[in-house]
Amino acid sequence: MKPIQVGLLGIGTVGSGTFNVLTRNQEEIRRRAGRGIEITMVADLNVERAREIVGDRARVVADAREIIANPEIDIVIELIGGYGIARALVLEAINAGKHVVTANKALLAVHGTEIFAAASAKGVMVAFEAAVAGGIPIIKALREGLTANQVQWVAGIINGTTNFILSEMRDKGLDFDVVLKEAQRLGYAEADPTFDIEGVDAAHKATLMSALAFGIPVQFDKAHVEGITKLAAADIRYAEQLGYRIKLLGIAKRRDDVGGIELRVHPTLVPAKRLIANVEGAMNAVMVQGDAVGTTLYYGKGAGSEPTASAVIADLVDITRLHTADPDHRVPHLAFQADELRDTPVLSIDQVRTAFYLRLRVADQKGVLSSITSILAASDISIDAVLQRESNEGEHQTDVIILTHETQEGAMRAALAQMQALPTVLAPIVSLRKEELA
Amino acid sequence: MKPIQVGLLGIGTVGSGTFNVLTRNQEEIRRRAGRGIEITMVADLNVERAREIVGDRARVVADAREIIANPEIDIVIELIGGYGIARALVLEAINAGKHVVTANKALLAVHGTEIFAAASAKGVMVAFEAAVAGGIPIIKALREGLTANQVQWVAGIINGTTNFILSEMRDKGLDFDVVLKEAQRLGYAEADPTFDIEGVDAAHKATLMSALAFGIPVQFDKAHVEGITKLAAADIRYAEQLGYRIKLLGIAKRRDDVGGIELRVHPTLVPAKRLIANVEGAMNAVMVQGDAVGTTLYYGKGAGSEPTASAVIADLVDITRLHTADPDHRVPHLAFQADELRDTPVLSIDQVRTAFYLRLRVADQKGVLSSITSILAASDISIDAVLQRESNEGEHQTDVIILTHETQEGAMRAALAQMQALPTVLAPIVSLRKEELA
Repeated sequence: MKPIQVGLLGIGTVGSGTFNVLTRNQEEIRRRAGRGIEITMVADLNVERAREIVGDRARVVADAREIIANPEIDIVIELIGGYGIARALVLEAINAGKHVVTANKALLAVHGTEIFAAASAKGVMVAFEAAVAGGIPIIKALREGLTANQVQWVAGIINGTTNFILSEMRDKGLDFDVVLKEAQRLGYAEADPTFDIEGVDAAHKATLMSALAFGIPVQFDKAHVEGITKLAAADIRYAEQLGYRIKLLGIAKRRDDVGGIELRVHPTLVPAKRLIANVEGAMNAVMVQGDAVGTTLYYGKGAGSEPTASAVIADLVDITRLHTADPDHRVPHLAFQADELRDTPVLSIDQVRTAFYLRLRVADQKGVLSSITSILAASDISIDAVLQRESNEGEHQTDVIILTHETQEGAMRAALAQMQALPTVLAPIVSLRKEELA
Repeated sequence: MKPIQVGLLGIGTVGSGTFNVLTRNQEEIRRRAGRGIEITMVADLNVERAREIVGDRARVVADAREIIANPEIDIVIELIGGYGIARALVLEAINAGKHVVTANKALLAVHGTEIFAAASAKGVMVAFEAAVAGGIPIIKALREGLTANQVQWVAGIINGTTNFILSEMRDKGLDFDVVLKEAQRLGYAEADPTFDIEGVDAAHKATLMSALAFGIPVQFDKAHVEGITKLAAADIRYAEQLGYRIKLLGIAKRRDDVGGIELRVHPTLVPAKRLIANVEGAMNAVMVQGDAVGTTLYYGKGAGSEPTASAVIADLVDITRLHTADPDHRVPHLAFQADELRDTPVLSIDQVRTAFYLRLRVADQKGVLSSITSILAASDISIDAVLQRESNEGEHQTDVIILTHETQEGAMRAALAQMQALPTVLAPIVSLRKEELA
């Protein structure tokens, strides 16, 4: 089956990330999707820059309508943003029978009803995983993963700029204005940051989540929106003393007592012990509370070139699997198509690489630590940290704790055998593996 | 379209949860799936107990093969567990052309290759969201949400029993044996806890995740498996002093340097500041690192009747949408079918209910706090906590911080106007909303 052809409208930060990831991982993506996926046309007003990014791997045009008019193109990715030309082009693409993938939360939160109706009428998908929380598959979780539940509420840190600013205000005790300037300097806030800091961007996303969670139309105009511009360092400090952190949350909540839905964005005190209170910097996280599943949480990068591209491409794969591949290739049992599994070997434990924690019960005498560390050195295992307990009086033995850097398990096992044989090592050595998970 | 008929094999904890949630939320589930979903037959050796659970809403039989032989049944849920009869019944159901939903990680980790091949040959799905991390839609995230990525590693707390034991060991400084007995008494560990505490259950789940992440067949026999039975309280304490927590992790990691996959379960030191290190008690969490998306994390209840049922039913909805509904109803744009949206009103901010944080700059004189609290009391707003700063010498004014219990926003706004009018309130009152998110 020949690759599905995709047209890309707008090749800025997310567009170039999408092109690059799709090119870099094309083989892996094909094995998952059951069919190759290629961006064969790109439309951007800046034709020169677009050509620099795509080289000769895609045709670059200035006029997006050339893509929409091309019968070879099955899917159009809209990454232009805003309500104006983006709305017109999305509707034209739908009417031309193209599936649409978009990261445009503003467009969908305001014009979603019109756009989804047009798509349903034409039997095409408008997919928008990238519109909320970047690379976190939260749309999929709400739309497919939690379908058993009456959702009770959704609450998320869904704007990285404001979460970065709030984290910095708390860490450094600084006021909003000072941190905003710093965030702009570092590229975490735009030159005109209004949509972020006034909560509008978060409200677009919360609006989409409210529709997904509760089966209501998108109604951005009904959202209550407050940003973080009036937040004082003093309140962050007082909240901390009371055991709370302040986060800008987008919240959608079912209120069965009055038969309505709350839809609101505002700075919120959250208990410091909650995982979501510990989501720092530009990261995003969304909590979903369902009547069957209880509380779930989804965490990851909410913006940036490749994290957002990850969501755009997941939508391309979904559309390819569900609408353009044969039914047998829809969603394969093991994520990759059955005829695309590989026999990549599972390594034996000796070949595994990890860092280690070692606890040695040793005689409290001179030279003990040196004999241990020289065994490690001879095995090319480097030491990250040592913790030596002072021995209790009259005890004559003590614990030595060693953290190592990453090493091969086989090497560690050999070194452990040597250390265990030392007369000054008085008990079986405890060894545990350590992972930084970074 | 008449409801899709489902047969349930085994109505224990998860089975009864599935039956109950499907009954309770049937209307909401139908609006999402595009078709009703009903369990019309239940097979359980304990026919009496099964009848008590389902009443007259489903036919109860002792022989599972009656369900498999019934041409009205489209989907079979297998919740028997184990490798024996469960394997035979799953294969028979597939051969009878039924889709299968199962929570049986042991079966799939060991016999998955055979079972998935049989399903592919018959063109049916074997869905298993409930087999890993209970209600967390991690299978869906790996299989559909992160398809753009070369997955670098997956690491998860995927056994609630051991995480509960490790949390208790750390909190109370107790040794493994003592906490295990306590966990058994509380129902967090089974009478024969071997599969959990020796890491076997986690290894079954890690095996499934390794296949989904890397496109390899399931190979449980290649997994390296270590449990927590030998873990000493001393090591948990030393790890803490070095800034680490010890968690039983299931890890699958791509090793491009040697062209292999690591697949292992063992107690692991994790930096205490990572979110996953703060996942306590019986909760589960899985981290996935992809080359495009970076680090993502998925958190929720990994076991229990209704959390697991949430995953089983999500699979039923997936199958209904993808394989038995007409193409127009596959995955609706807004989670609910387009003709099933409701006009539930979005509430005005005055109707919203939250708790509040108030900061009042007040004159440092007698009776100030009492005049404030009596306004709140008269408005039926109850106080959760008060923090009063001592005024600096010669300053004659001070901050009063009040946390309230939940109240209606309209009531709070009226009370704020009254408090603001007090002559002893010297600056605009700061009010922020507070959410417990529990």
